[in-house]
Amino acid sequence: MRQSLRMGEQTIVCPNRPVILGTGTVAGKKESEGPIGSFFDVIAEDNVLGKETWEKAESEFARRAAEEAFAASGLKPEQINYLFGGDLLNQCTGTSYGIRDFNIPFMGLYGACSTMALGLSVAAVYIDGGYADYCAAVTSSHFCSAEKQFRFPLEYGGQRPPSAQWTVTGSACAVLGASGDGPRIDCVTNGKIVDMGIVDANNMGAAMAPAAADTLIQHFADTGRDPSYYDLIVSGDLGLVGKNTVIDLAKKSGYELSTCYEDCGLIIFDRDSQDVHAGGSGCACCGLTFCGYIYQKLKQKELRRVLVMATGALQSTLAVQQGESMPGIAHAVSITSED
Amino acid sequence: MRQSLRMGEQTIVCPNRPVILGTGTVAGKKESEGPIGSFFDVIAEDNVLGKETWEKAESEFARRAAEEAFAASGLKPEQINYLFGGDLLNQCTGTSYGIRDFNIPFMGLYGACSTMALGLSVAAVYIDGGYADYCAAVTSSHFCSAEKQFRFPLEYGGQRPPSAQWTVTGSACAVLGASGDGPRIDCVTNGKIVDMGIVDANNMGAAMAPAAADTLIQHFADTGRDPSYYDLIVSGDLGLVGKNTVIDLAKKSGYELSTCYEDCGLIIFDRDSQDVHAGGSGCACCGLTFCGYIYQKLKQKELRRVLVMATGALQSTLAVQQGESMPGIAHAVSITSED
Repeated sequence: MRQSLRMGEQTIVCPNRPVILGTGTVAGKKESEGPIGSFFDVIAEDNVLGKETWEKAESEFARRAAEEAFAASGLKPEQINYLFGGDLLNQCTGTSYGIRDFNIPFMGLYGACSTMALGLSVAAVYIDGGYADYCAAVTSSHFCSAEKQFRFPLEYGGQRPPSAQWTVTGSACAVLGASGDGPRIDCVTNGKIVDMGIVDANNMGAAMAPAAADTLIQHFADTGRDPSYYDLIVSGDLGLVGKNTVIDLAKKSGYELSTCYEDCGLIIFDRDSQDVHAGGSGCACCGLTFCGYIYQKLKQKELRRVLVMATGALQSTLAVQQGESMPGIAHAVSITSED
Repeated sequence: MRQSLRMGEQTIVCPNRPVILGTGTVAGKKESEGPIGSFFDVIAEDNVLGKETWEKAESEFARRAAEEAFAASGLKPEQINYLFGGDLLNQCTGTSYGIRDFNIPFMGLYGACSTMALGLSVAAVYIDGGYADYCAAVTSSHFCSAEKQFRFPLEYGGQRPPSAQWTVTGSACAVLGASGDGPRIDCVTNGKIVDMGIVDANNMGAAMAPAAADTLIQHFADTGRDPSYYDLIVSGDLGLVGKNTVIDLAKKSGYELSTCYEDCGLIIFDRDSQDVHAGGSGCACCGLTFCGYIYQKLKQKELRRVLVMATGALQSTLAVQQGESMPGIAHAVSITSED
């Protein structure tokens, strides 16, 4: 009866190819002014959607993104079997307060900035196996709540080194189903923790890049694919420093990424004009770039095969204060618009 | 091809009945002195396993619990396809630092004190569907790291009201497989967020009880079972206040729980002699009670049918400071030792 759906060491095949039925995106003002700003459903001109704290704003972003995704999928909240989600805030309150009124069974995830891909991968498995008919995957981040929690109070005005990235303000949600029209997930590769001893919270790209390379190389080995199989491979939020490290590490393993590989942190912001140093970061960086921009390109079949690999750094402020390094992780989801 | 494995509104059937092959438990000194202290694999007499901070100790607990579980299952870490886990610490660092050296693909969960049941439920689905051959579910909590993060510095010596619970110091891990000897998971019911507006961080039981009742009543409705189907129904860490609330709420829906229902927070500590007020709490409360005590009783067939329902409160300190209430959630896993 039970058939193994494993491919190689770390990859899962989804023979029923779950469909991404619709997405919802809510973006901050800076994000709306970037190169893909026109792809977002809702723009928060005030960056807080009228809420009185950054954290409450982040939850409201998540609520609105989920609402937009349900509407885009033609579904009511009560039709969604499970909502998978998480964010960067302590105890993932961005997500849990945001979605609590939907009355949807909820499974909280913690993948830091890898949460969009982690959520897509778990939702795909639940649908592929017949354990759910419809699932949603949601994530969020907010520049102000993240800076406050992980780095310095905003009022301090600390100077940011060139390797620092800019946490994306926004939330994104994708709704998956067993059938219908839309891009489909055909396989997923969930990653291992890779910790190379990086301790600089202003150099997240370097902390996450080895994990990204590890997952990517494993995905190629497991599937027999190489970079040329994909029209686009995106990492989540490595920024310029991390992206170049991934290209170098992949080259050492015999994979040439330079023609089809980009990082969401370099897609969502224009580094020349938007003063974001090494690029965007945060859960919403991959969230908005995938659910907003890449999803539309897949739907219009301008992209046929995409590997979305979101990356996360799993440290806490306290752990770094106690001398710990920042462990990285990366989860990859293969999405196709081919029939 | 694709067969629906849904039963009722919120329950998943696992036709292949994943096996819990082995468990590992590491407990603090107070826990070792409680009624089920003899069931734990490792006792940390110093409560920190020689580590210099409470947070590093919690990670070491998680590492040791996983090691014990792998050994009990006769498996090497490299045979485990996925490790699912999380804890109460900000950014779930108890788990991620604890398990990072195992080199096992990792999917972080956030369910607060519901994490043991959340992990078991997701691991069961991955194995049941053929997406994994072996999975581990791990969680941890530590009295000192939790008090420091969620309530007051320990040195402050704040007085605790009678409704307060005592966070369990320990970690637990279960390893699941597709075949082999051991208790089996036949169905799972993942819960919705239920928020009744409780704002008192010293009354977690009251915050989580409505969610527990909601999941329990839904589980009975979905499966057609009633309390008499089970030898034992345990909630995770409602303590005395929450337990009595669940009994009352279930009675209003026509279910009489009093004969077969207990709370892990009242099993792990002796309230009369251990000064724990309303009982135990924390991720390790359900973790240790299930993976230590209940698992052995199932293995020896002293228990045949058990419903393990762990409960979580999804607030953060900051959210409560901003006036938010504490949303509750509960996930239930049905485990049988019958052939």
